[in-house]
Amino acid sequence: MAEPLTVGVDFGTLSGRAVVVRVRDGAELGSAAFEYPHGVLDETLPATGRALPPDWALQVPADYVGVLRNAVPAALRDAGADAGDVIGVATDFTACTMVPTTADGTPLCELPEFAGDPHAYVKLWKHHSAQPQADRINELARTRGEKWLPRYGGLISSEWEFAKALQLLEEAPEVYAAMRHWVEAADWIVWQLTGTYVRNACTAGYKGVLQDGQYPSRDFLRELAPEFESFVSDKLEHPLGQLGSRAGSLSAEAAAWTGLPEGIAVAVGNVDAHVTAPAANAVEPGQMVAIMGTSTCHVMNGAELREVPGMCGVVDGGIVPGLWGYEAGQSGVGDIFGWFTEHFAPHGHDELTRLAARQEIGEHGLVALDWHSGNRSVLVDHELSGVIVGQTLATRAEDVYRALLEATAFGTRKIIETFTEAGVPVTELIIAGGLVKNALLMQIYADVTNLPLSVIGSEQGPALGSAIHAAVAAGAYPDIRAAAAAMGSVERAVYRPVPAHVVAYDDLYAEYTTLHDYFGRGGNDVMHRLAARRRAVSKAVAKGRS
Amino acid sequence: MAEPLTVGVDFGTLSGRAVVVRVRDGAELGSAAFEYPHGVLDETLPATGRALPPDWALQVPADYVGVLRNAVPAALRDAGADAGDVIGVATDFTACTMVPTTADGTPLCELPEFAGDPHAYVKLWKHHSAQPQADRINELARTRGEKWLPRYGGLISSEWEFAKALQLLEEAPEVYAAMRHWVEAADWIVWQLTGTYVRNACTAGYKGVLQDGQYPSRDFLRELAPEFESFVSDKLEHPLGQLGSRAGSLSAEAAAWTGLPEGIAVAVGNVDAHVTAPAANAVEPGQMVAIMGTSTCHVMNGAELREVPGMCGVVDGGIVPGLWGYEAGQSGVGDIFGWFTEHFAPHGHDELTRLAARQEIGEHGLVALDWHSGNRSVLVDHELSGVIVGQTLATRAEDVYRALLEATAFGTRKIIETFTEAGVPVTELIIAGGLVKNALLMQIYADVTNLPLSVIGSEQGPALGSAIHAAVAAGAYPDIRAAAAAMGSVERAVYRPVPAHVVAYDDLYAEYTTLHDYFGRGGNDVMHRLAARRRAVSKAVAKGRS
Repeated sequence: MAEPLTVGVDFGTLSGRAVVVRVRDGAELGSAAFEYPHGVLDETLPATGRALPPDWALQVPADYVGVLRNAVPAALRDAGADAGDVIGVATDFTACTMVPTTADGTPLCELPEFAGDPHAYVKLWKHHSAQPQADRINELARTRGEKWLPRYGGLISSEWEFAKALQLLEEAPEVYAAMRHWVEAADWIVWQLTGTYVRNACTAGYKGVLQDGQYPSRDFLRELAPEFESFVSDKLEHPLGQLGSRAGSLSAEAAAWTGLPEGIAVAVGNVDAHVTAPAANAVEPGQMVAIMGTSTCHVMNGAELREVPGMCGVVDGGIVPGLWGYEAGQSGVGDIFGWFTEHFAPHGHDELTRLAARQEIGEHGLVALDWHSGNRSVLVDHELSGVIVGQTLATRAEDVYRALLEATAFGTRKIIETFTEAGVPVTELIIAGGLVKNALLMQIYADVTNLPLSVIGSEQGPALGSAIHAAVAAGAYPDIRAAAAAMGSVERAVYRPVPAHVVAYDDLYAEYTTLHDYFGRGGNDVMHRLAARRRAVSKAVAKGRS
Repeated sequence: MAEPLTVGVDFGTLSGRAVVVRVRDGAELGSAAFEYPHGVLDETLPATGRALPPDWALQVPADYVGVLRNAVPAALRDAGADAGDVIGVATDFTACTMVPTTADGTPLCELPEFAGDPHAYVKLWKHHSAQPQADRINELARTRGEKWLPRYGGLISSEWEFAKALQLLEEAPEVYAAMRHWVEAADWIVWQLTGTYVRNACTAGYKGVLQDGQYPSRDFLRELAPEFESFVSDKLEHPLGQLGSRAGSLSAEAAAWTGLPEGIAVAVGNVDAHVTAPAANAVEPGQMVAIMGTSTCHVMNGAELREVPGMCGVVDGGIVPGLWGYEAGQSGVGDIFGWFTEHFAPHGHDELTRLAARQEIGEHGLVALDWHSGNRSVLVDHELSGVIVGQTLATRAEDVYRALLEATAFGTRKIIETFTEAGVPVTELIIAGGLVKNALLMQIYADVTNLPLSVIGSEQGPALGSAIHAAVAAGAYPDIRAAAAAMGSVERAVYRPVPAHVVAYDDLYAEYTTLHDYFGRGGNDVMHRLAARRRAVSKAVAKGRS
């Protein structure tokens, strides 16, 4: 008798990846990827060649359908699977990535009249030009004392639904007027699979500022801009689907694209980071999953609602229904190591690692702050920058490199302690993402946090997580927790803290904390002043050259 | 009629250089160098192959005589000069570099019974293993409230006469007992030229702690070590010679070595940094000479005695008789640039400079502290270390490089302001030393200090300064000031502050000052703790490996 299978599809920044998974035990039988033909549009619009301003990042929705048409059939072939054994499919997406559509879900950029307008395209998560709108939203929310603001650590991001929508209204009112739905790409792709629009509870909460069943009020929106007053009711509000639920059935058209059976379950959409939790079988309160790559995203369930300073968000059912899903983040991690290696260390990553690994703790005499991309959690300040203290003429590249690894570990410990102090204790740290391969980094994290480090067993965590959701949506398991227990993959306590290291790092972490609070909590606002000066000078230089 | 000439001989760390100079106008007619055959002994003693402990640095006095025998005749040949036209010779030396001798000036290392004892050799200025003795001297001086301590910015160096002598007493009592004179090499070389021992007022003050005619008291010395009580009267005290005075006449033996006429004037000994002031015609109060190389030494005359916080020393007649000679220093300057370029910037110094020079002030968004070799003036703390604040993923090597150049300029401004605030105003900055060639650095110094930068005209400042002293000793000029005016060489205001740059740097200097005081004046002693940990760990590692 054939084993039931599911398909998970992970939509990343540059490509999508499909994986075919056995429902019984989560075994990954095959996978395939498909690169978006248009990639990220950040310089020109292909239709017209029109130049895009700085900080823009767009995508073409048809590229996502390309993943369904190419990667899914290829994954089935790779698995040697009979498509008839597939009982469900689920997807996860980058977020917040937004598609402006008509009433039937057609992206506005696919209408001839808007094909030349950049605002009609998908605004990718890293489209950052709505910062002025985000600043106004935050300023007004603080002034009005909006209750939802602390649910996001006190700051709404320029990446999120409201800032991007307000930018659309103000910079392209005709596109805004033609838009019926402002749709998360996570939900748009499900709409393509099922023919039905279901808004997922995860992005609605984390990116759509939906708290206690309410979006920001009409009053609030009117104060931002009179024409924005009815934004929620006109463009945003839509019935929610809980994670792991069945959004609908695979349509005939989508069945033709994917080669999957028409009518099988399609799960409610989800976000790549959040869906990694079930993939690592880490959905119980206290199990923090750190997805470590260029940046780190931390997701964890909690039994109760707490306002954790500097978190990215807390959402009811944001990871699994029935629990509060917490999210935090470090804006720079792997990209800091990459930046240093590329620009300041001629001998390269492997040699740096070999030399750094030979050192005893404190031998380099350094302590650093890991804010080269700003600080999301727990300071929520993108104007912060890096610091290194303790360099002498004897300092070598591997010393600085190790200090930077340690600094990101201290940053993670700061987040863990902040959660614990706010009443959301962290009891286990599970690592996913590309950096799990760095054994030196992993041991440093164990020693700094004094937690045994578990490691996700899959190299394609989000896609596996989606496949788990698909199994739940198909009714193979009663809920995500049960499915995660059977299908998730984790190696427990791969890296254990070494007691002597823990003691040594306690001292260095105390130094980190002192510097963290001095530079990050108003002791010395030099970083803000340096950043303001840098911007002003660069602007003047650019003007002078133009 | 033949022009009168003088010869100046500069004894450096690795070689000596002689220059033949025309008395009328200071024209440098010829020069020659001679490398010390034994260089710096810091690993083994050649006589026995005996290994030297860490932080030792010895020299062989016969090497200095080699300079007289080789470089002086070669310089005369290079100048095409008739030796008969030379009316005087003078020397300058590294300091504090100490020779233990018998009553007739024979170095103890030249006695067969001591040839195998490292303590019988010359202790070079950078012999640093008397630090425990220096620590005890400082501790006791502070406890007893010794009046001379503030004359040295509150700290006696391990490089100086008392610390090195106490080490000699305690580690080699038999050598100490056999020693009649503890002689500065600056005076020992004059002794070789004249046959007479004259102690120069400059090193006696700066390195020998002679203040107001008194050395540290017998009481003080007894408290350090009972056998040290009579050190001053037994081994150190000796009639002083003022700078520019005639120490004696060239002996027949020295005339034979050098090819110079027997009986010509030999000037009192001097120190390389201090003798650079007349070479740059900068001997009036307010004219600060910065000799900029791997480190920077600042010398300046003042009309009155003031206790300047963190200076290296103030000595009556320490640069020219009749004025108070002030000295300050930055422990790391060129060596910081070299360190960064070698280990963190693959593209090298020229390219770094080209890229850094294109930047507007503040464009890099960085501010650094220049303490990679500790801080001499004004904090007098060798446990301090470097800091850089403001790095982002956009920071490149040239940004850091420029920030380091600026940091050393801020360090110089801090010294200038401290002098001015203490009642010793600085009105002109004259640059000598190898770094004068760096035009970007020079312009930054002018902009940061808001002072026009004058530049010494000679590439061999100390040797020219000695030749000026020789002319005074020979009676060709009434005093050093008159000789410096005629023979010194300086280009005034080569680099002028740009008003817009001055304003911009005022802001960045304010940031530097805030960090300077936070890390250097007790706000956060993290650097001391990091250094202590680094030492402890390195020691444990070394022990574990041995």
